[in-house]
Amino acid sequence: MTPGNSNDSNRRFKPLTVPRRTVMGPGPSSANPAVLRAMSLPVIGYLHPAYFDVLDEVETMLKEVFKTEQRAFAVAGAGSAGMEAGLQSILERGDKVIICSYGYFCERQVLMCERLGAEVVELRSEWGKAFDPQQLSDALRQHPDTKLVVSIHAETSAGTLHPIKEMSDIAHAAGALFMTDTVTSLAGCEVDFDGWDLDFAYSGSQKCLAAPPGISPVAISERALDHIRARETLPSSWYLDLSLIADYWGPEHKHHHTNPVNMVYGLREALALTLNEGLETRWLRHERVAAALRAGLDALGLESPVEESARLNQLTVVSLPKGVDDVKLRGQLFDMYGIEVGRGLGQFAGKVIRIGLMGESCVPANVFNLLNALERLLPEHGYETGKGVGTGAAAAKLASEPAPLY
Amino acid sequence: MTPGNSNDSNRRFKPLTVPRRTVMGPGPSSANPAVLRAMSLPVIGYLHPAYFDVLDEVETMLKEVFKTEQRAFAVAGAGSAGMEAGLQSILERGDKVIICSYGYFCERQVLMCERLGAEVVELRSEWGKAFDPQQLSDALRQHPDTKLVVSIHAETSAGTLHPIKEMSDIAHAAGALFMTDTVTSLAGCEVDFDGWDLDFAYSGSQKCLAAPPGISPVAISERALDHIRARETLPSSWYLDLSLIADYWGPEHKHHHTNPVNMVYGLREALALTLNEGLETRWLRHERVAAALRAGLDALGLESPVEESARLNQLTVVSLPKGVDDVKLRGQLFDMYGIEVGRGLGQFAGKVIRIGLMGESCVPANVFNLLNALERLLPEHGYETGKGVGTGAAAAKLASEPAPLY
Repeated sequence: MTPGNSNDSNRRFKPLTVPRRTVMGPGPSSANPAVLRAMSLPVIGYLHPAYFDVLDEVETMLKEVFKTEQRAFAVAGAGSAGMEAGLQSILERGDKVIICSYGYFCERQVLMCERLGAEVVELRSEWGKAFDPQQLSDALRQHPDTKLVVSIHAETSAGTLHPIKEMSDIAHAAGALFMTDTVTSLAGCEVDFDGWDLDFAYSGSQKCLAAPPGISPVAISERALDHIRARETLPSSWYLDLSLIADYWGPEHKHHHTNPVNMVYGLREALALTLNEGLETRWLRHERVAAALRAGLDALGLESPVEESARLNQLTVVSLPKGVDDVKLRGQLFDMYGIEVGRGLGQFAGKVIRIGLMGESCVPANVFNLLNALERLLPEHGYETGKGVGTGAAAAKLASEPAPLY
Repeated sequence: MTPGNSNDSNRRFKPLTVPRRTVMGPGPSSANPAVLRAMSLPVIGYLHPAYFDVLDEVETMLKEVFKTEQRAFAVAGAGSAGMEAGLQSILERGDKVIICSYGYFCERQVLMCERLGAEVVELRSEWGKAFDPQQLSDALRQHPDTKLVVSIHAETSAGTLHPIKEMSDIAHAAGALFMTDTVTSLAGCEVDFDGWDLDFAYSGSQKCLAAPPGISPVAISERALDHIRARETLPSSWYLDLSLIADYWGPEHKHHHTNPVNMVYGLREALALTLNEGLETRWLRHERVAAALRAGLDALGLESPVEESARLNQLTVVSLPKGVDDVKLRGQLFDMYGIEVGRGLGQFAGKVIRIGLMGESCVPANVFNLLNALERLLPEHGYETGKGVGTGAAAAKLASEPAPLY
């Protein structure tokens, strides 16, 4: 029998190492080193006063980031857990729900609602274009008994931003609740929970907040919480019941499941860094760095299938020119340059690459690194670009700004 | 506008700090520093080959720890997410489920099953005693159409260990599937998934595996996976659908939700440390350290409401002598000694404290620290103990063992 001390020399497994990567996909993005440091602080009990102080601080910070004076806290799971928590908690079997669908993650919302036994009305519109709120008005006239309207603010599969405030107003005028996905938008562009009169918004830690994936910040209106507490039947999920999660995060800190202590440490630090940078400064950083990327791509003659007014700063969708092989190009970027970009999903599969510039990954160095790699690789696919043309254009764009932001 | 660099001196928030604590509650327990280090490695994409290597290694290690040649992977949430994933995935509305209930967390299983619209048969038995398998035989004769029998191996609220192999055999003889909770047992005492013919077992990262909370290792039989894939209706939860999670962890690594990359790093490291120590050596460490604690408590005249043969090593329940105030004592331990112990839940509320010795927290130093604190505090509550009596008895017990284990 060997002693239990794991420092002995005959250990079977060596410490984990991971390869160096420039993470520029649709998410996760890189985590800030200070966030990773915070996550490695010692575990303390999730029912003790010192930890409640952490929860209370996180709730206060989240309210500032979501721009709400109502409730904000975190669901212990991926962004999809936040998505499902909203749907599970608000909808009862047989309730009518309208889903505005313009991308892959909207279709995930449809799948979830079908599983819940809701009556789903799908409003599909073209990928790559902003949703037309008139379509929602028309649908609500046809379905006046709708309980909930579901949407996505920044659709990561299509690279599009949508008119959430208008959609929310229309839903409320028809007496429906309104929820939206802010996974890719929160902390990367304006989200105004109270100003837009939202009922539920969920996000992810791993995008513009620059923490690792695994925890989902959410905000919820008093109206939605009242609705959940007045349901006729309980949500089929206990784990994702927002009223129970709200009560754990609330002043009484009622026992629910074990809270993911170190993920919350990381979220706290990510929120602190976000607010130290300044919310509007952070949005501006995403705008300027994305503008530099777009200037570089333009100079290389590369186009986007997304209409200009609907383009996200956090995620740029680039159409692959004729002859450029999707799988091969992404493999080359990955193997030769250590750069992760995303593939196309759904309607865009095989036709585009998706470039994320979010949170810690949203820096000029990443833009230059990727443009340089594209300038060197695309000619191998039969698409000629001048060397230095894209990187030069990106630098010129950045130089036209008053001062560096990061 | 301030620059985005968060090192500037006018930052609003300082880096997070947490107080020093000796974590000896029912969970979480302390995380091994190497696990915390692994969690702070850089984020890489959850759909890239380098990360699939990590997943594959974790699955291999989990199979060794669960003792199974079937499937093992992790649900992205707390142990309660693993619990609910099993119930959501196996049960359809109207299915009959028998829940063997002898503690607080068994009652959580009841609540979850009721929410799912299952027909719940509750077999309640006395807290503090091992479950009598005959009770299950009788119930299955009365309910031959039972689809699933649910149990807990180590009940953390009651401090009891239960005869899972016998219960599993009885369930299968009646044609039912059998699932059990191994949150507190896994890596702290024997769990033999294949040998006990289990269909589903879920655990937590934050107990005997010595990682932070937030991810739930699970094992599942081929029989249970086939059952889930052949359901008439889909599980109401998409996030917790074990067939989708199994497909992401499986050789095709099919897209599901964003995987909690850094939590999986931590789990990998915790499994590596567990297997480096040796599974049986680790069980023996839990046995010996708990025996030392019990020797110390005995010497102080403190008793347990748990029958001797059913006592857990991972968690010791101690009855508070007459006149000892529960809330005051735990507050003193916390404030004066930095020691976290657990309160009584359910039937044990106000009557006991619960002392966890799990994973990284399961070391002689913690036993001495707590016994010393009790020797100093209990006389203030009117309960006299000799100074050094408990600590001395614990040391004598440890000295009777052939060699130190940790």
